[in-house]
Amino acid sequence: MKTRREMLVAMGGVAGAASLVGAGFFNQMFASEAFASTKSNLKSGFPWKYVELDPDEVAEKAYWATYEGHCMYGVFTPIAEALAKKVGDPWKSFPVDMFRFGAAGVMGWGTLCGAVNGAAASIYLVSKDPVPLIDEVYNWYSQTSLPDYTPINPKDPKMETVQTISGSPLCHISTTKWCEASGRKFFTPERGDRCCRLVASTARKTVQLLNAQMAGSFKPQYAIPAAVQECRSCHGKGGGVENTNTKMDCTQCHDVGEDHAS
Amino acid sequence: MKTRREMLVAMGGVAGAASLVGAGFFNQMFASEAFASTKSNLKSGFPWKYVELDPDEVAEKAYWATYEGHCMYGVFTPIAEALAKKVGDPWKSFPVDMFRFGAAGVMGWGTLCGAVNGAAASIYLVSKDPVPLIDEVYNWYSQTSLPDYTPINPKDPKMETVQTISGSPLCHISTTKWCEASGRKFFTPERGDRCCRLVASTARKTVQLLNAQMAGSFKPQYAIPAAVQECRSCHGKGGGVENTNTKMDCTQCHDVGEDHAS
Repeated sequence: MKTRREMLVAMGGVAGAASLVGAGFFNQMFASEAFASTKSNLKSGFPWKYVELDPDEVAEKAYWATYEGHCMYGVFTPIAEALAKKVGDPWKSFPVDMFRFGAAGVMGWGTLCGAVNGAAASIYLVSKDPVPLIDEVYNWYSQTSLPDYTPINPKDPKMETVQTISGSPLCHISTTKWCEASGRKFFTPERGDRCCRLVASTARKTVQLLNAQMAGSFKPQYAIPAAVQECRSCHGKGGGVENTNTKMDCTQCHDVGEDHAS
Repeated sequence: MKTRREMLVAMGGVAGAASLVGAGFFNQMFASEAFASTKSNLKSGFPWKYVELDPDEVAEKAYWATYEGHCMYGVFTPIAEALAKKVGDPWKSFPVDMFRFGAAGVMGWGTLCGAVNGAAASIYLVSKDPVPLIDEVYNWYSQTSLPDYTPINPKDPKMETVQTISGSPLCHISTTKWCEASGRKFFTPERGDRCCRLVASTARKTVQLLNAQMAGSFKPQYAIPAAVQECRSCHGKGGGVENTNTKMDCTQCHDVGEDHAS
C-alpha cells in the first residue's frame, strides 16, 4: 500500500486536472457515480412544472417564511407559493407545512441544515436533471461566506450579522461557526435572524440555478475540494478501502495525521 | 468556570435523574426547547389524515421501494401508498418521487441518512404531535443494532447481513461502521441490500410509533445519552457557552480531552 505522502503525490495529477477542467468535470463524475438524475420509473407528471421565478422576490419571502416555519420550510414554501400563483395546480395543494420538520437539522438534531435540505427537495421536485444543481448548492453553501442576502424589510432594522464559511452542509457546524465569529449565543434573536438570512440566500441561489438550467445557461462554479478528493481516492468508489461515500469535507471532523495510510 | 471534572460531578445528578424518570422526561424537555409540535398557523387540512397501518407490510414494501428510489423514498413511499389505498385523496396525488433526493445523505453527500430524513417527513405530515416521535426514531436509529428486519422475499435469498450500531443519524457514519463490521465495500450489492433492510426497519418503526400515538399508547423508550447531556450543559441552551444545538453524540467526532473546559 502506498504511504499517505505517495498518495498525495499521486493525487497531484488529479488535483491539477481539477483546476484545469474546472468544477464541471468533477461534479459530472460524482453525479454519475451512483445517482442518475434521470429515472425511467418516475410516476406520471413528475417532475412538476417550473417556470422562471424572481430570485430576489423569493429570497425576501424566504426570510420571513423562516420566522414562520423554520429553515427547510423557509426555502421550500416561497418557491412553492410563487409556482402556485404562476402555474396553479398541483402546486396549490402541496402540504408545505410538512417541511417544518427540517428545523435546525431536523427538529433540533443539528444534522443537515434545513436550508439545503429544502433546496434539494425543491430542486428534485422540478428539475429534469437535479443532481448537478444539488451538488452546486451544497458546494456553494459549504464554501461561501454567508448569509449574503440582506432583507429589504428586516425584522429589526438595527440588527446586523457577520458572515461565515461553514465548510459543511450540517446545521450544528454552520451555526457554531457563526456563534464563534459573532460572539452571540445560539438561542438569541441575532442567531435566529442570521438563519433567516441564510435561508434567504439559499432560496435565492436555488431559484437562480433552476432558472439557469431552464434557460440552458447553467454551469457549475463549485467543485468538491481537492483535500476531499484525496480522501475519496482511497475511501470512495474504486479506492482500496472504499468504506464510505460522501462529498463533505472529511478533514473538518477527521484528524488525518502523517502516519495515516502508511 | 468549573473544570471538566467538576462538571462531570455536577452532571451526575442529572444523569441520575434521567435513569430514574426515564426517556420521557428528557425527550419532553428537548421537544419543548425550541420547536413546539403544535403550531397555530398551519395551512388548512394539515396534518394529513393517518389511519392505522400494518408495520410489517409497510416494512416489506419499504425494502423493495429502496431498490426503486433509494432510502428516503423507501421510507416515505410505502406509507404514502398504503394511506392512498385506505384514505384516498390527498394521498393519491402526493409526488413521492421528490424524496429520491435524500439518497445516501442527499445524492451521495453522506449527510443525514435518508431513512430518518424520510421518517421525519412522514411523521410531520400526519402527526399532531410529531416532535416526540421524531426524537424517538432518531434516538432508536442511533442506539439500536440495525437492520433488524429480514425481508420475507429478499432480492438474493443467499445474502445475509451483519447488524451495527451507528451511534449517529448521519449516512456516512452508519454506512462506514457497517462496511468495517462486514468487511464489505460501500459500492457492493451487500451494502445496498443492507441499506434496503435498514430502511425497512425504519419504516416499520415509524409506523409502529404513529400507530401507538394514535392509539394513545406511545411512550418514549430512548433518551439522549448522558454524555451528550453533559456537553449540552455547557454548549446547549442555557449553558455558559451555548454555541450549538444538537442531539447527536458529540464525542463521536469531537475529541474531549481531560483539559477540556478547565
